[in-house]
Amino acid sequence: MGIVLGPNRYGKAEVRLVRVARDDAVHHRITDLNVSIALSGDLAATHLSGDNSAVLPTDTMRGIVYSFARDRPVGEIEEFALRLARHFPAAYEPVHTARVRIQAYPWDRIDAAEGPHPHAWSRGAGTRYAGAVCGPDGTQVVSGIEDVTVLKSTGSEFHGFLQDRYTTLQPTSDRVLATSVQARWRHTGTEADWADSYAQARATLLRAFAGTHSLALQQTLYAMGEAVLAEQDGLAEVRLALPNKHHFLVDLAPYGQDNPGEVYYAADRPYGLIEGTVLRDDAPAALPELPW
Amino acid sequence: MGIVLGPNRYGKAEVRLVRVARDDAVHHRITDLNVSIALSGDLAATHLSGDNSAVLPTDTMRGIVYSFARDRPVGEIEEFALRLARHFPAAYEPVHTARVRIQAYPWDRIDAAEGPHPHAWSRGAGTRYAGAVCGPDGTQVVSGIEDVTVLKSTGSEFHGFLQDRYTTLQPTSDRVLATSVQARWRHTGTEADWADSYAQARATLLRAFAGTHSLALQQTLYAMGEAVLAEQDGLAEVRLALPNKHHFLVDLAPYGQDNPGEVYYAADRPYGLIEGTVLRDDAPAALPELPW
Amino acid sequence: MGIVLGPNRYGKAEVRLVRVARDDAVHHRITDLNVSIALSGDLAATHLSGDNSAVLPTDTMRGIVYSFARDRPVGEIEEFALRLARHFPAAYEPVHTARVRIQAYPWDRIDAAEGPHPHAWSRGAGTRYAGAVCGPDGTQVVSGIEDVTVLKSTGSEFHGFLQDRYTTLQPTSDRVLATSVQARWRHTGTEADWADSYAQARATLLRAFAGTHSLALQQTLYAMGEAVLAEQDGLAEVRLALPNKHHFLVDLAPYGQDNPGEVYYAADRPYGLIEGTVLRDDAPAALPELPW
Amino acid sequence: MGIVLGPNRYGKAEVRLVRVARDDAVHHRITDLNVSIALSGDLAATHLSGDNSAVLPTDTMRGIVYSFARDRPVGEIEEFALRLARHFPAAYEPVHTARVRIQAYPWDRIDAAEGPHPHAWSRGAGTRYAGAVCGPDGTQVVSGIEDVTVLKSTGSEFHGFLQDRYTTLQPTSDRVLATSVQARWRHTGTEADWADSYAQARATLLRAFAGTHSLALQQTLYAMGEAVLAEQDGLAEVRLALPNKHHFLVDLAPYGQDNPGEVYYAADRPYGLIEGTVLRDDAPAALPELPW
Repeated sequence: MGIVLGPNRYGKAEVRLVRVARDDAVHHRITDLNVSIALSGDLAATHLSGDNSAVLPTDTMRGIVYSFARDRPVGEIEEFALRLARHFPAAYEPVHTARVRIQAYPWDRIDAAEGPHPHAWSRGAGTRYAGAVCGPDGTQVVSGIEDVTVLKSTGSEFHGFLQDRYTTLQPTSDRVLATSVQARWRHTGTEADWADSYAQARATLLRAFAGTHSLALQQTLYAMGEAVLAEQDGLAEVRLALPNKHHFLVDLAPYGQDNPGEVYYAADRPYGLIEGTVLRDDAPAALPELPW
Repeated sequence: MGIVLGPNRYGKAEVRLVRVARDDAVHHRITDLNVSIALSGDLAATHLSGDNSAVLPTDTMRGIVYSFARDRPVGEIEEFALRLARHFPAAYEPVHTARVRIQAYPWDRIDAAEGPHPHAWSRGAGTRYAGAVCGPDGTQVVSGIEDVTVLKSTGSEFHGFLQDRYTTLQPTSDRVLATSVQARWRHTGTEADWADSYAQARATLLRAFAGTHSLALQQTLYAMGEAVLAEQDGLAEVRLALPNKHHFLVDLAPYGQDNPGEVYYAADRPYGLIEGTVLRDDAPAALPELPW
Repeated sequence: MGIVLGPNRYGKAEVRLVRVARDDAVHHRITDLNVSIALSGDLAATHLSGDNSAVLPTDTMRGIVYSFARDRPVGEIEEFALRLARHFPAAYEPVHTARVRIQAYPWDRIDAAEGPHPHAWSRGAGTRYAGAVCGPDGTQVVSGIEDVTVLKSTGSEFHGFLQDRYTTLQPTSDRVLATSVQARWRHTGTEADWADSYAQARATLLRAFAGTHSLALQQTLYAMGEAVLAEQDGLAEVRLALPNKHHFLVDLAPYGQDNPGEVYYAADRPYGLIEGTVLRDDAPAALPELPW
Repeated sequence: MGIVLGPNRYGKAEVRLVRVARDDAVHHRITDLNVSIALSGDLAATHLSGDNSAVLPTDTMRGIVYSFARDRPVGEIEEFALRLARHFPAAYEPVHTARVRIQAYPWDRIDAAEGPHPHAWSRGAGTRYAGAVCGPDGTQVVSGIEDVTVLKSTGSEFHGFLQDRYTTLQPTSDRVLATSVQARWRHTGTEADWADSYAQARATLLRAFAGTHSLALQQTLYAMGEAVLAEQDGLAEVRLALPNKHHFLVDLAPYGQDNPGEVYYAADRPYGLIEGTVLRDDAPAALPELPW
């Protein structure tokens, strides 16, 4: 009976990398990433006695991100996440498991007079995500989006819910439904046309949000996840976190006005938070250390 | 000789308003605003003795924003800012001057299978701005953009600068230039095709950023402001604040690699900050209380 | 073989509650909380068909927080978290499990001429945390702190680490060590002197940080967790997340100056992130849904 | 008639500096600063033609901050701001005016078993500020605080205000009053016991907030400014910006409960914003470029 070291990991978080690919002197492509790495393994000595002989400095992890980005093109972020995740357990004996998280910020070419500019960009909305784990139990990869804010000004109802002495909410057959989508989809394999899979999943999520006549945000969530799985055989599971960004009809009666669904107050806090998973019933289990 | 009350103002800040315009049951348009109001006038009594007889509660200002939004369509944000700014001095005798600031968040229709969705949106990047002042010295209006992040991966040099014992920066003939544009342009009148003027100014700023071969961010700033003024006679002045979001080439020599302009580190702090004004030499002066 | 609903939950997040306890007209105490609730249970119907008959609106959860705060004093936040967590499964048949998270913001009495002011406060640094889960597998409670930033200007070394071709970091026998502490400690029972336990754990964590001659942030982490467990029998486990907020010695050689540990640059990103658990080897397992 | 360059300036913003003063191997003092510099002068050439011969790179400004911090102790932040502001116009002929802004983050010694720790700190609440300008019209300095959040749970009324058809606010004789203080006080000279002046002004502001029975936040603002001026002859002017952080009584009637000033909802947006100046009527004018 005593005090012991439990699960632990460490790494370098938020390594900001902008990679310029120069097709020629003026025609470029860019990749803008935020990379985080976490390792676990034989780390008891550093915790218990400060013996760092099994510790790869986080500064080294930072250097590896940059060096790998020079070696060859970064490619799709799932690919880069996998390459990094595989490197650490292979290269360093004390490392058992590596987790890599990458956020990618989108850039659109500036619309110049003569068409899309060859090397000038404007940053767009929404963030793309990839995460990978590589360890003794295998390798897995997840893709996703975040900070994609969507809103429907009709086509959303909410009624028939539990009522009791604490109920003040009125049922409604027409409300504004808005949320900031955080979605993750897990791939069954580690090879895919990542760009295509991402573009399709993103478009499908938005279309399912738009096209579902919503009776609850939970129903919209399920419809979004189901649509993505239905379309891509290579996906095992979709996880969604949808904050319900409440828009309240302003009571204009004090000013002698009605308000037939026109004037809303966008509230900050509190907010509903709906989280759910949609998966194939025959999907292999997710690795516990997969960085969702 | 004594202690006296100096310049002061008060108001309601950040009134969040989402206005839905229903062309029919399913075809909507939306406007998403953050409105701030500040009033000044005969306010000595409330400061000195807590006599509030000249104080319009900020809660009332909030109500006016919502009530006005119901009265008739909000229209372009410059129009709504002017309408609000004119209301307060006209309606309340102790109010001398009203300043209104509006931020507008862009929404794009979600791309559904059958085309742009009639009532489902995804929030875009960049914020539009309008400010108006109405007081004894007149009425003025300013438009602008903010949070528009742009980057050029070549076409930017920096050399020939002052050198002394504190100089460590190396001159460069090819660097990444990135900034988050905050721009304001002041209108000479209070009538304009606001939507058209805004769209043109925004596009011009981006094109001038992209098209200027930059020898200094100051030069790019001036070119951006000059291009906007050259194109629109109704504008008197452009003010720009451009944080120089530094991208540093990573030194890969320790890893045995060169780095011919490919791998960059995007730094957070510190950053250069370039601020400047471009104006017509015959432009009437800006009102001191204009909310830039 | 098909697509099915997986784990899910929903609730109201960030209900802001300020509770004033009035001992008399002028002597008050205040509690400033941010409460989040998440429920899980029989929720397939709302996801699959929008049938909300098992859904307690998140608006009702908000009301319950406020109503409970009126019923009787909030007490310590662990107590309030437990009271809320127990309510939902007991009161609503479809609810199986409730998770409650509470952040508490500290307020210090303003130092008036005649001593601590009876009803005027200044907000202090650092946030206190409590989380509770109540479900079919039992009830558990966790306490914690976050946003407590600490720094040591000496007494920290880092050397003896793994070296390879990607190594650029120099070993050091004296560095600045700084971190923002996020700590959680799990109670074995659901009864305790919460205020006393919290005060002791917080003080112990700071003292262990200060008093440990650090050879690695992992070692400091373990020492912090161990000290808390060693002191309080009622605790089963401590989890810590410590971002290594790097402070780099500025190279002043270009200016003809040395820098013997005096002038540092505080970097934002990237940062090391050290996460670890210290636990009793005979501790019962944590419930999977405990909101750490 | 043409397009010309108007007012402009540039500089390095947010140089993060942590300065350790080592009284001996273990007894330290620390200063944690965020320094921003802006210069103006003969800068037409860089704007109009990209000729940078009058441009001191912002990288050099960064270096000067760090080098000066090594030269001799930073001292009080007003002193460091003045030293930096005076350097640039003196050292560089094209520079006419320098503005320096410094934020200082407070650190308290960790309470160790044997007393305050000699080199371990915990970061406190609230930020100290100093700004200085040095140019052809003279040198001035301003001090201040920001992010100091205060609250009174009684002793605040609001009634007797303007009423009209847009009024919904009910008068109240007892409300919660909360704000985040941003205060600036301008010194008449450039020599003072900065530490003492700061400590006194900070304490006075808090005590005036606490001790004023408030009939309006404007009245509290004036009382706060007046108290600071009344106490320190060396100050010319106090500027305050006080967001009214609204706390609304929750309506508990739907749950069959009253709410006699006990349960409040702390709202995020919108908020009232009260801004005002208190000054000596014989105070010399503030320089236009003083960085408040």
